[in-house]
Amino acid sequence: MAVERKTVIAVVGAGKCSKKLRDMAARVGKYIAEHGGVLICGGMGGVMEGAAKGAKEAGGLTIGILPTDNKDDANEYIDFVIPTGFGEARNIIVVRSADAVVALPGKYGTLSEMAFALKAKKPLVSVSAWKLGDEIHQVEDPVEAAKLAMELATEGK
Amino acid sequence: MAVERKTVIAVVGAGKCSKKLRDMAARVGKYIAEHGGVLICGGMGGVMEGAAKGAKEAGGLTIGILPTDNKDDANEYIDFVIPTGFGEARNIIVVRSADAVVALPGKYGTLSEMAFALKAKKPLVSVSAWKLGDEIHQVEDPVEAAKLAMELATEGK
Amino acid sequence: MAVERKTVIAVVGAGKCSKKLRDMAARVGKYIAEHGGVLICGGMGGVMEGAAKGAKEAGGLTIGILPTDNKDDANEYIDFVIPTGFGEARNIIVVRSADAVVALPGKYGTLSEMAFALKAKKPLVSVSAWKLGDEIHQVEDPVEAAKLAMELATEGK
Amino acid sequence: MAVERKTVIAVVGAGKCSKKLRDMAARVGKYIAEHGGVLICGGMGGVMEGAAKGAKEAGGLTIGILPTDNKDDANEYIDFVIPTGFGEARNIIVVRSADAVVALPGKYGTLSEMAFALKAKKPLVSVSAWKLGDEIHQVEDPVEAAKLAMELATEGK
Repeated sequence: MAVERKTVIAVVGAGKCSKKLRDMAARVGKYIAEHGGVLICGGMGGVMEGAAKGAKEAGGLTIGILPTDNKDDANEYIDFVIPTGFGEARNIIVVRSADAVVALPGKYGTLSEMAFALKAKKPLVSVSAWKLGDEIHQVEDPVEAAKLAMELATEGK
Repeated sequence: MAVERKTVIAVVGAGKCSKKLRDMAARVGKYIAEHGGVLICGGMGGVMEGAAKGAKEAGGLTIGILPTDNKDDANEYIDFVIPTGFGEARNIIVVRSADAVVALPGKYGTLSEMAFALKAKKPLVSVSAWKLGDEIHQVEDPVEAAKLAMELATEGK
Repeated sequence: MAVERKTVIAVVGAGKCSKKLRDMAARVGKYIAEHGGVLICGGMGGVMEGAAKGAKEAGGLTIGILPTDNKDDANEYIDFVIPTGFGEARNIIVVRSADAVVALPGKYGTLSEMAFALKAKKPLVSVSAWKLGDEIHQVEDPVEAAKLAMELATEGK
Repeated sequence: MAVERKTVIAVVGAGKCSKKLRDMAARVGKYIAEHGGVLICGGMGGVMEGAAKGAKEAGGLTIGILPTDNKDDANEYIDFVIPTGFGEARNIIVVRSADAVVALPGKYGTLSEMAFALKAKKPLVSVSAWKLGDEIHQVEDPVEAAKLAMELATEGK
């Protein structure tokens, strides 16, 4: 009778970004959804919005863990909005909720999420510029990153 | 293209409880799911488990916001597990994520969730013994509570 | 070589209040400081500011656990500012840091702090209107409340 | 009548470490205390304990922001214990409470604190091996780090 939980992949990256990076995030979200994964992210703009858009366009489900305490702050592609009111500390919740993490380019918020992913021993696949050691799976292509994250997440189950 | 978000109802109450109270929670969860709502709760045992079980048996979706940082701590009826690692402070996230809150009997943790619901101006329907003033909708029957919460949640949208 | 820690008393209550209530809070803060206690509070206005002012005028030390992430938001009577950025969830930190809690009149934020104090089994002395059961020490006079809190805090050590 | 707040320096680094690193932390804590600064840290072992010990031996004041919800978990050199119960998320509070941050060698927890310091635009002086870009003041000697942190903290006021 227990529910069969779907694989959950976190996508992290810049909250404000170029159209190019947003499209890259959309390809990651799309891959995850097409392969049965649930997307979790910070629920706001930039990479978070791109990834959620891609996932929704492929018919997937999306969860957004907001820094603010207001559901209305979520981007329009989030199915389940979790408004924490905990500011940047919500980054740690995004990562903990995932079976694997894909890091796209981003700055210090992204860096904190990568640090927490490593701390929590979550599989971490990175397309970002942060070089943080051998425990990170560094790849060039965002769809490769999504694919590898789905594989690593499944292995860990 | 924006997603159509479902109504989300939080069910709060004792983490350890009698079979009678657990069954009461199950009827609340069942009503929510049968009427198109998503159940959110603290993801652990007692009322949380009862409500999630009821919702799943009616084919609904369930979200659990855990106090611990380990997904494995969730009860088996939770579809989407959010392991915060924030202890009791996760109570505030449960409440903020909901469009309305149903309070079943519980002790101080439940009281904190009712306090936060009132603070956040969320519609609060209570079957609990805590009498906290006129802003709470006090009812006797748990299914009545679920029904009223769904109505108040929809009005607020 | 271990430090000798001073007794820490939390004073909670309305963030916006009358001059009368603020003066009541000041008397509580003054008593705590005069008897060797450290005052901890939410660091903002109203009761928090009154209590901190009273403690400083009696030569005491004050700690403020802010909801915001900006030290500048603290009232001017706080020696040690802890800007959490966690919003209302910081209430739980205020209570956990104390050896005993004095609750002055306040609304739902105060109620949440009383709930967390009871949950954490902290001695709780209340001058507030919230009647939450026999585990609370209900008194009329604020200085009596401070005195009793200091006594209960010391017993607990 | 406003209080004159002292400069607060956060020292972050490994929670478990060699005696050599602990002694390095003690020298940092000692310098801070000798120059009128207040030490803030995560309140636990390793670098946190070393830094607090150094500060106390020089007659300073120490604040510990604990991951657990139990004051008894603090090391014995902490004057003011703030037991958050928020796990690793308390790292962000340590950093936000400081006027400048000294990072000693540490692993992913330390990395998350450095990320949050950069995000919060706190002056960050590092003796650690994490190379995270030009906004960090990288030095070799721990006492140099403490000295620079005190200077940068004062400039920022």
